[in-house]
Amino acid sequence: MKKIAIYPGTFDPFTNGHLDIVLRSIRLFDKIIVAVATNPHKTPLFSLEERISLIEQSLVGTECVEIDAFNGLLVDYVEKKGGLVIIRGLRAVSDFEYELQMALVNRRLKPDIDQIFKMPSEEYSFITSTAVREIASLGGSVTALVPAPVDSALKEKFGTAEPL
Amino acid sequence: MKKIAIYPGTFDPFTNGHLDIVLRSIRLFDKIIVAVATNPHKTPLFSLEERISLIEQSLVGTECVEIDAFNGLLVDYVEKKGGLVIIRGLRAVSDFEYELQMALVNRRLKPDIDQIFKMPSEEYSFITSTAVREIASLGGSVTALVPAPVDSALKEKFGTAEPL
Amino acid sequence: MKKIAIYPGTFDPFTNGHLDIVLRSIRLFDKIIVAVATNPHKTPLFSLEERISLIEQSLVGTECVEIDAFNGLLVDYVEKKGGLVIIRGLRAVSDFEYELQMALVNRRLKPDIDQIFKMPSEEYSFITSTAVREIASLGGSVTALVPAPVDSALKEKFGTAEPL
Amino acid sequence: MKKIAIYPGTFDPFTNGHLDIVLRSIRLFDKIIVAVATNPHKTPLFSLEERISLIEQSLVGTECVEIDAFNGLLVDYVEKKGGLVIIRGLRAVSDFEYELQMALVNRRLKPDIDQIFKMPSEEYSFITSTAVREIASLGGSVTALVPAPVDSALKEKFGTAEPL
Amino acid sequence: MKKIAIYPGTFDPFTNGHLDIVLRSIRLFDKIIVAVATNPHKTPLFSLEERISLIEQSLVGTECVEIDAFNGLLVDYVEKKGGLVIIRGLRAVSDFEYELQMALVNRRLKPDIDQIFKMPSEEYSFITSTAVREIASLGGSVTALVPAPVDSALKEKFGTAEPL
Amino acid sequence: MKKIAIYPGTFDPFTNGHLDIVLRSIRLFDKIIVAVATNPHKTPLFSLEERISLIEQSLVGTECVEIDAFNGLLVDYVEKKGGLVIIRGLRAVSDFEYELQMALVNRRLKPDIDQIFKMPSEEYSFITSTAVREIASLGGSVTALVPAPVDSALKEKFGTAEPL
Repeated sequence: MKKIAIYPGTFDPFTNGHLDIVLRSIRLFDKIIVAVATNPHKTPLFSLEERISLIEQSLVGTECVEIDAFNGLLVDYVEKKGGLVIIRGLRAVSDFEYELQMALVNRRLKPDIDQIFKMPSEEYSFITSTAVREIASLGGSVTALVPAPVDSALKEKFGTAEPL
Repeated sequence: MKKIAIYPGTFDPFTNGHLDIVLRSIRLFDKIIVAVATNPHKTPLFSLEERISLIEQSLVGTECVEIDAFNGLLVDYVEKKGGLVIIRGLRAVSDFEYELQMALVNRRLKPDIDQIFKMPSEEYSFITSTAVREIASLGGSVTALVPAPVDSALKEKFGTAEPL
Repeated sequence: MKKIAIYPGTFDPFTNGHLDIVLRSIRLFDKIIVAVATNPHKTPLFSLEERISLIEQSLVGTECVEIDAFNGLLVDYVEKKGGLVIIRGLRAVSDFEYELQMALVNRRLKPDIDQIFKMPSEEYSFITSTAVREIASLGGSVTALVPAPVDSALKEKFGTAEPL
Repeated sequence: MKKIAIYPGTFDPFTNGHLDIVLRSIRLFDKIIVAVATNPHKTPLFSLEERISLIEQSLVGTECVEIDAFNGLLVDYVEKKGGLVIIRGLRAVSDFEYELQMALVNRRLKPDIDQIFKMPSEEYSFITSTAVREIASLGGSVTALVPAPVDSALKEKFGTAEPL
Repeated sequence: MKKIAIYPGTFDPFTNGHLDIVLRSIRLFDKIIVAVATNPHKTPLFSLEERISLIEQSLVGTECVEIDAFNGLLVDYVEKKGGLVIIRGLRAVSDFEYELQMALVNRRLKPDIDQIFKMPSEEYSFITSTAVREIASLGGSVTALVPAPVDSALKEKFGTAEPL
Repeated sequence: MKKIAIYPGTFDPFTNGHLDIVLRSIRLFDKIIVAVATNPHKTPLFSLEERISLIEQSLVGTECVEIDAFNGLLVDYVEKKGGLVIIRGLRAVSDFEYELQMALVNRRLKPDIDQIFKMPSEEYSFITSTAVREIASLGGSVTALVPAPVDSALKEKFGTAEPL
């Protein structure tokens, strides 16, 4: 049986920290599904389609990765896709508490679905999508923090792309 | 290539929380090596041989698990065994900070070895080996907190086994 | 003099974790007042009247408990009701810091009113009202997490009640 | 039935933070037992007899307080004394995690014994027995941090009492 | 070269905790610039002009302090003003994680700008602008928590000023 | 008046994280005194003389830095040296709580001495002296984590220096 792992998130936008987690997880499982939450409550900076497209461009040439959208209960989605395990990144203590709570809730809802956590490299440990959006919106450079397609998309969004 | 995961620890003694992590990890990888640290600095309650024997008894009938001792640098041991990934349990914020530090150190020492973290079920979240030793030494019952062979060994160690 | 304890909260909705704290506090004091915050800033899922009614249904047959609404400064309300002490639940580190701050503020405002904190049983430690609302809104079952009247009300609210 | 609360600790030595918790708890319960742990593993600065005597001197004239020694499992001691509830102070996040773990262990061992936590006033929030011993041993003044009898005992212990 | 430190914040409103940090920082540097964020995303209680005016009134007679508004990226502002270092207050663990992240981001953006953190006196450690606004809006007294001009402005804002 | 800052620690051994803090602090003050604690309670890996010598070698050519030993109460030492401020590094939440406590104690003991905290670059955030000693003792390379003279001294201490 193929071992499928689901990596869910909002990815608004996809950062080098997310990329690091995907690339390192590929070696552990047979397939990684990057599952982009549609997240109806919040207004994201990038639309669902844009977010999926930016992840696709960032992962071009990477095998064994599927990019998909999901809504509803995460564990229902994982079950539907035949996923064995959910992958989550852990950066900070505040992440930890939220993730622990969600892990316990998910385990209560579907005991057969497992969850694992990965800590990013120290060079990515301070990069959150929120910080990336904030810096880019104020005109700061995020070139070192996100994949190149995301960097371009942010420059276009905030009108800071250099004229040809 | 077989996907081997290493689950290192002192296991002094092995608890139901540890057992939960082993049993849930078996489904993710081809083989789990429970690697018992010889830990020369501290005087453990149970000797290395006793700790290994108690884990063997607790995991009797479980396939795809190997129990082994290790000393020296964990990442060197993992490499020698052909391990792909290190598994660590995460229970509390204080665990988290220590584990994050060790994960970053290990990644610096051997970038190819990965690490994943698992959170225990809520019913095991408060069980530490230290708490088990403390309660057992004061005559309290730990029957619900450890596998049966460990429970017997603790009762014998502290002279609280009921006479025949 | 009767020893009255106030248990304030938004209770949107009342969970098994809240119920556990009320039931365990009854033995310590002569009377518990569950004080539902009207909370004008946020739009709750359940109206004040619904929240009070759900708590009443969940505590039916329980003696020495009064359910009440309050607005304004908590310490003023406690003083008006002749309360000796405020009871708060503590689940996580993030709770802890907020609660410590509010305890110090309240103590500065009314030094004679005391505060105590209770930690929930591990089986309730991951249940927050926010998680309950989120799961229920996505169609997940919260039957094990909330009292039966709250479970029914959530099913009705989100249209997931089974047809007769 | 009298409502008895147990306030356990090592009290090496008793500080103004401990005193604050005792004095504020008296109003909540019918009797407070300050239970001094004999703590065979560590070598305390003050002997059990000295610690008990210093607490007695610090609480002279206070009604409804008993000072006692205990060893063995705390919950067994509480049961023997007819205690309804254990009182613990909470100062910091690191306290919180340890206390949460012990509360869950105790609840598992004796579900009928309750536990409450109290946060100290901000002026006592940074005082630990460890800090008091450290400062006093280096010749610093702890007059503002501990009751007068403890201050005198520390000066004598470290030879910093002024000659007559 | 003059050593200039920038103390940025929203200061909605300026509290005794902020005042404590300014007054203690004056001794360390040649000039302190209190930099009030215009913060276009949130609607503050006090307008930018009001916040600046309240800080000026609170610091009247204090030398070597300049009060200014800023928008855009903090590190760009600091560079423009010739600032050597950014000063931030640290009260709680949750502050700490956010501040660590921002410090790492700022250091990545402008490696030459330094950041230092100061912990407030214990008597100010629980005062946040949010708590001050909340208490004042509910009619509680914040006289001990904020400078006198801020206290008056809050009373006027919430209509709790006593009639002449 | 010269602005002198004291950077105290055990420095067993001095790491690249410590070096980063010294080098960045030089620009803020007129003089930095690296104050090595004699620490009579613990047995350090390197003697006081070795630790001082390794810091001297690591800081060779750096101006405005003095290396000194101290014992007794830190604030007394700072006062004796005419220090204006104590510098401390902050890496993790557990550091934060301990540092907050010590800052409050020191402020109570000597209100005129200030304290500032600096967060290390992310590349040094996981380096502690304890981790360095542990890795080196197990034969791992710490070349990237400590200044060259410390690296050589560790290799000699643990017999892992390569033969000529």
